[in-house]
Amino acid sequence: MQRYFISRNNWKENDVQIVDDDYHHIVNVMRMSNDDQLIANREDGKSAICEIVNITENVVEAKVMEWLDESTESPISITIVQGLPKGDKWEFILQKGTELGASHFIPFQAERSVVKWEPKKVEKKLPRWQKIVKEASEQSHRTKIPTIDTVFSTRDLIEASNNYDWKFFAYEETTRGEKSQKLHHFLSKISEGQSVLICVGPEGGFTENEAENFQEADFEAIRLGPRILRTETAPLYVLANLSYYFEEMR
Amino acid sequence: MQRYFISRNNWKENDVQIVDDDYHHIVNVMRMSNDDQLIANREDGKSAICEIVNITENVVEAKVMEWLDESTESPISITIVQGLPKGDKWEFILQKGTELGASHFIPFQAERSVVKWEPKKVEKKLPRWQKIVKEASEQSHRTKIPTIDTVFSTRDLIEASNNYDWKFFAYEETTRGEKSQKLHHFLSKISEGQSVLICVGPEGGFTENEAENFQEADFEAIRLGPRILRTETAPLYVLANLSYYFEEMR
Repeated sequence: MQRYFISRNNWKENDVQIVDDDYHHIVNVMRMSNDDQLIANREDGKSAICEIVNITENVVEAKVMEWLDESTESPISITIVQGLPKGDKWEFILQKGTELGASHFIPFQAERSVVKWEPKKVEKKLPRWQKIVKEASEQSHRTKIPTIDTVFSTRDLIEASNNYDWKFFAYEETTRGEKSQKLHHFLSKISEGQSVLICVGPEGGFTENEAENFQEADFEAIRLGPRILRTETAPLYVLANLSYYFEEMR
Repeated sequence: MQRYFISRNNWKENDVQIVDDDYHHIVNVMRMSNDDQLIANREDGKSAICEIVNITENVVEAKVMEWLDESTESPISITIVQGLPKGDKWEFILQKGTELGASHFIPFQAERSVVKWEPKKVEKKLPRWQKIVKEASEQSHRTKIPTIDTVFSTRDLIEASNNYDWKFFAYEETTRGEKSQKLHHFLSKISEGQSVLICVGPEGGFTENEAENFQEADFEAIRLGPRILRTETAPLYVLANLSYYFEEMR
């Protein structure tokens, strides 16, 4: 059944009003009509099977038939901090990361990032990125749409990191004589409901300087398996590992 | 250090002859010269740090300085059978699947595959695909290059499946009243050195008919986590899970 994310303002208890792009999709793409069913998601993650009761010139009106008890959201909250990569890899990470259960994405202006994103550019691109994660959420049957931040500096990142229970950064090198640990080493200590920040470097990885800043702020250095992963593969590997541990092993 | 896969014929004990594309890469891209070092891989997975001793018009001659003891290969042998997907997803799966540790790839003409590949087309494309997995192997520091098969029918697949210790197919539906199991359910039964066949459907998944054929041939139906994954994300999720279980948890 087709799934739509409906903003808070368009719910009135068991009545839903569907407008704009979703209206277009229902009426012109899916060619639905009265009595047809769809799944509507609320912003708080609740979802319901709804039936169309009326279609006006710009609103599809539907009513809840049955509230669903879905569990497609990860029991931990995962934020992916991605060192700005080249080309269209960022959009790829948004799409695949959404399928794999990330709840928040932060683009990070890393020292080795070849591209430079001005906050203005990010603001302009944000609607397109939000569309990518919304569509990936619908397709993968998620009940919450991940959120996307503006571009962070190291300072922003370290400040924001105080809000997280766990903070990791992927690092192949040795810092201050210490080897990075396997992510597995930490997983049994993470509890359901906790928040986890995962930082992945751009092509070429994090610099020694960045690694030192992260370590001073109590980030843990982790290795991602025995092979060297491309920057865009690394967040997917972490997300799949977290899914395996927190969703599949239980 | 740059890594090159050298075919059997170009090794003579501790002497290596590097030709063709790799010659070009060493001489014109990396601009290496005598005494520079590189890693050379043998087809059997052994690798060594080598030093360049001579560069002729079309051969780089190098000699082994130190044999390496690398462990970047999965302790199990994983074959990805991919229902032919649309667009360039197949090449994406080859690249990412190599990074994530697959040892063999089989393109599968599934009932819901929109595209149809003739064996002739596959033969023509093979050199390009082999280049993709070779480059991904070098980049991810693998010591063995995955192999790629021609396109398989259901019959081919079931015949080939006899050579595997474990056979799985990703399936969201119920077959004969039985729900698919989590992959996790099986992992503790798989031993190091065993071979595992993982079949992933194209867009839209496997048909009921295909699922029945697989089950008759003793394939196990598995679910891949709580979310619905796109066809090209599914093999990466499985590979990352297998890497976590067999490479990270130990």
